[in-house]
Amino acid sequence: MNEFIFPLRVYVEDTDHGGVVYHANYLRFFERARSEWAEQLGFGAHWQREQKIYFPVRNAVLEYLKPAKLSDRVEVVSRVKSVRKASFVYEQYLRSAVANDTILCRGEIKLACVTHDLHPCGLPEQVRIILGDNS
Amino acid sequence: MNEFIFPLRVYVEDTDHGGVVYHANYLRFFERARSEWAEQLGFGAHWQREQKIYFPVRNAVLEYLKPAKLSDRVEVVSRVKSVRKASFVYEQYLRSAVANDTILCRGEIKLACVTHDLHPCGLPEQVRIILGDNS
Amino acid sequence: MNEFIFPLRVYVEDTDHGGVVYHANYLRFFERARSEWAEQLGFGAHWQREQKIYFPVRNAVLEYLKPAKLSDRVEVVSRVKSVRKASFVYEQYLRSAVANDTILCRGEIKLACVTHDLHPCGLPEQVRIILGDNS
Amino acid sequence: MNEFIFPLRVYVEDTDHGGVVYHANYLRFFERARSEWAEQLGFGAHWQREQKIYFPVRNAVLEYLKPAKLSDRVEVVSRVKSVRKASFVYEQYLRSAVANDTILCRGEIKLACVTHDLHPCGLPEQVRIILGDNS
Repeated sequence: MNEFIFPLRVYVEDTDHGGVVYHANYLRFFERARSEWAEQLGFGAHWQREQKIYFPVRNAVLEYLKPAKLSDRVEVVSRVKSVRKASFVYEQYLRSAVANDTILCRGEIKLACVTHDLHPCGLPEQVRIILGDNS
Repeated sequence: MNEFIFPLRVYVEDTDHGGVVYHANYLRFFERARSEWAEQLGFGAHWQREQKIYFPVRNAVLEYLKPAKLSDRVEVVSRVKSVRKASFVYEQYLRSAVANDTILCRGEIKLACVTHDLHPCGLPEQVRIILGDNS
Repeated sequence: MNEFIFPLRVYVEDTDHGGVVYHANYLRFFERARSEWAEQLGFGAHWQREQKIYFPVRNAVLEYLKPAKLSDRVEVVSRVKSVRKASFVYEQYLRSAVANDTILCRGEIKLACVTHDLHPCGLPEQVRIILGDNS
Repeated sequence: MNEFIFPLRVYVEDTDHGGVVYHANYLRFFERARSEWAEQLGFGAHWQREQKIYFPVRNAVLEYLKPAKLSDRVEVVSRVKSVRKASFVYEQYLRSAVANDTILCRGEIKLACVTHDLHPCGLPEQVRIILGDNS
């Protein structure tokens, strides 16, 4: 578990009047990739519900390099940058699926861990082991 | 309580690559108007949470007449068309705020009433009285 | 070309406070499926741009049967119901990917054909042939 | 022109399964506020279309402090932090409309200036004067 590649296509819903992906929607693409990866790693939505925890975004840093356009095939590349007692950070970027060295958007997304009633809590050990605790 | 007029402006988030409002977003405009009206009538989100009920959409019929465009000032006009034991129907349309006879989109939206765990239930009498039960 | 099946998963972005897919987002799921199908059939976004036409939604009828929930695997099943000189109608529904007879939402979506500057025009013959003109 | 306050309410469309505003949607709130302010300052959507330019987001930094919840009344507070030859930066935050010292989300958003075909260009002098060039 080092890197996760999530393919998607740009649809009309994603675009804005400029003919490119609306800037907020890159955060949605990144969330889809993180969620899909979490499912595969065993701490997806059902597991979170059972544990009565979930992982809200605490910080997001986005750099928009080139616009993604309607019907483009793109890929979100994700890796875990760091894991702390109660948070973890993803590095993610969107690239063209046909020209892999064309980076469209880069993001760094910090997630915390909270209980069902939104109180902060430590990351479950199981998740820290999966993510590779480097605190 | 007969008609509710809810003003809004079209922002970039609402548009698509065609330079007009993305078709699904008219449903969002209509929902904003219904929610705001419910708040004013006393059966808004907090009340629903207390009562452990909410009002999911069961049917929606939409007719797109003229596109709303970026930065247009528009208004959602809403009225309650009918009220049943366990559902009610809104007629809503979006019109230009500067040319009130220019209708952009018409909708008919049927809502049901469900409990917190998504089981159907009857409309609370309070809501039926407010909406004007004509079942 | 009779039926097109488009798989997707429900992500956090799709849900609302009720823990289910926000009602307007089913229209987005349906649009993704129609767009992907159009790409495969040869009249996708690039072709539309070359022809300086596109296909806005004129009418939408939606019936919400069962809520789709976070992380559900679902499928949009689409077929063309009818084709006219200047419009065509899709029947689409969303079903569970694990229980194919569980229908979550049904839709009937009528599209028109317009030029780049939003004037109505006839469907290109090529599209009518692909869709199977039954006017 | 120093600060711009833009009120809004949280609707169902804005929330996610956690019962709070979906993290990407704060970017939409911020964009609404910037767009409305631009309209008031004279460089809104119509002016941009006439000038054949627009202002895509180049960088966004977001800090999520407290979740905004369904039906909350909130306000986006915006100010221009800096203006360069070809870009400008907004500082924006979302606060409760009833408890003004409760900050929910902070953002710093850098916009560039591009021509209609997405080529970078300098900020029109008129815009730089309005924004208060401090390059």
